[in-house]
Amino acid sequence: MKLGRVAGTVVSTVCAPVFEARSLLLCDLEDELEQPRGSYVIAVDAVGVGVGERVLILDEGNSARQVVAIPDAPIRAVIVGKIDAVESTDRD
Amino acid sequence: MKLGRVAGTVVSTVCAPVFEARSLLLCDLEDELEQPRGSYVIAVDAVGVGVGERVLILDEGNSARQVVAIPDAPIRAVIVGKIDAVESTDRD
Amino acid sequence: MKLGRVAGTVVSTVCAPVFEARSLLLCDLEDELEQPRGSYVIAVDAVGVGVGERVLILDEGNSARQVVAIPDAPIRAVIVGKIDAVESTDRD
Amino acid sequence: MKLGRVAGTVVSTVCAPVFEARSLLLCDLEDELEQPRGSYVIAVDAVGVGVGERVLILDEGNSARQVVAIPDAPIRAVIVGKIDAVESTDRD
Amino acid sequence: MKLGRVAGTVVSTVCAPVFEARSLLLCDLEDELEQPRGSYVIAVDAVGVGVGERVLILDEGNSARQVVAIPDAPIRAVIVGKIDAVESTDRD
Repeated sequence: MKLGRVAGTVVSTVCAPVFEARSLLLCDLEDELEQPRGSYVIAVDAVGVGVGERVLILDEGNSARQVVAIPDAPIRAVIVGKIDAVESTDRD
Repeated sequence: MKLGRVAGTVVSTVCAPVFEARSLLLCDLEDELEQPRGSYVIAVDAVGVGVGERVLILDEGNSARQVVAIPDAPIRAVIVGKIDAVESTDRD
Repeated sequence: MKLGRVAGTVVSTVCAPVFEARSLLLCDLEDELEQPRGSYVIAVDAVGVGVGERVLILDEGNSARQVVAIPDAPIRAVIVGKIDAVESTDRD
Repeated sequence: MKLGRVAGTVVSTVCAPVFEARSLLLCDLEDELEQPRGSYVIAVDAVGVGVGERVLILDEGNSARQVVAIPDAPIRAVIVGKIDAVESTDRD
Repeated sequence: MKLGRVAGTVVSTVCAPVFEARSLLLCDLEDELEQPRGSYVIAVDAVGVGVGERVLILDEGNSARQVVAIPDAPIRAVIVGKIDAVESTDRD
């Protein structure tokens, strides 16, 4: 998984029902210090997030299909969570 | 998924029926500001687009097979939509 | 598989049960001389490791699902071991 | 898929029958202007091509297994066609 | 597939039986002229090779599972052969 930040909504005409009920969000990928890495991914929103939010992105088709609960959905990347923090000390 | 722009049609002799009825399009990958990223992907056209159009490309085999509705097609990348805009504000 | 070092714990609200009982660790990828390569991956901890430990990361969905023993878990990268050494001589 | 050019034949002792009847070809990846991109892939030849020919390479395991018609072949990249041209105008 | 050269053995405590009977080898990736490309992969040895040998690496989970003949092994990259040569002329 990767850390990202929602940069915008992709407005498009897409040929698959899975995208009709969910937003397609363009997410800039970031490093652990919240700096942009110069690349992006377009992911389906499975959580309900908005522009500017820091998110966790899972980029694997079978996982994405599980998350949206549609076994044959044509989908590869999905936003699976909101990031609260990356802590550099152990949490015991 | 990635944003791209159709740059041309690949004319080839390909050894699989899935390609006979569909165009193989060379798409330059772009960033969210429509600038080229210096790489490309060759994708099957599942939408009906032409050279110069801005498209949404899904690059995962199982998804691509769903989109063309051929469970055993040898195919990895597919154009799944036309991009109208990338909006950087929330749409509520 | 790749070599990495645990840099921190990702604190997030994630929409899948597989993450509830396991830590999500941010791991900096390293080369064989333990130098950082400038990239990272977020992996599920299947071993029990802490910040600073050198780990072996397996980044493939089907493998990760086997390791956590949940066939339909939405998961791609998993920490599968602790690295003791990389030896440059044969071990016969 | 990617565009490439056959640079040579890999002569090796490989531990899987799928490779016995087929050539393993080293293909330099190229851009749409036939310029090398500085990387390569080793692909199984499913078409019958020779050194110097411009080819279409499909780099996905399930697709490659379909093309060689061996459902459990350990294979990821396959040459699926010969490139005649990349045309930058629409073909209607 | 990629060309590589075995650089060392990874000594680790790994949480899956598939690794107990097989070596985990760190392989530097090389180009066709045997020059290092600056990256590596850790692969399971399915052939029996030693440090310094030039090898063929297959980096796809389903293929790797076929090669080790364990359908549910958590494994992605496997050494499938020893390279004798890369010949730049046709072999007819």
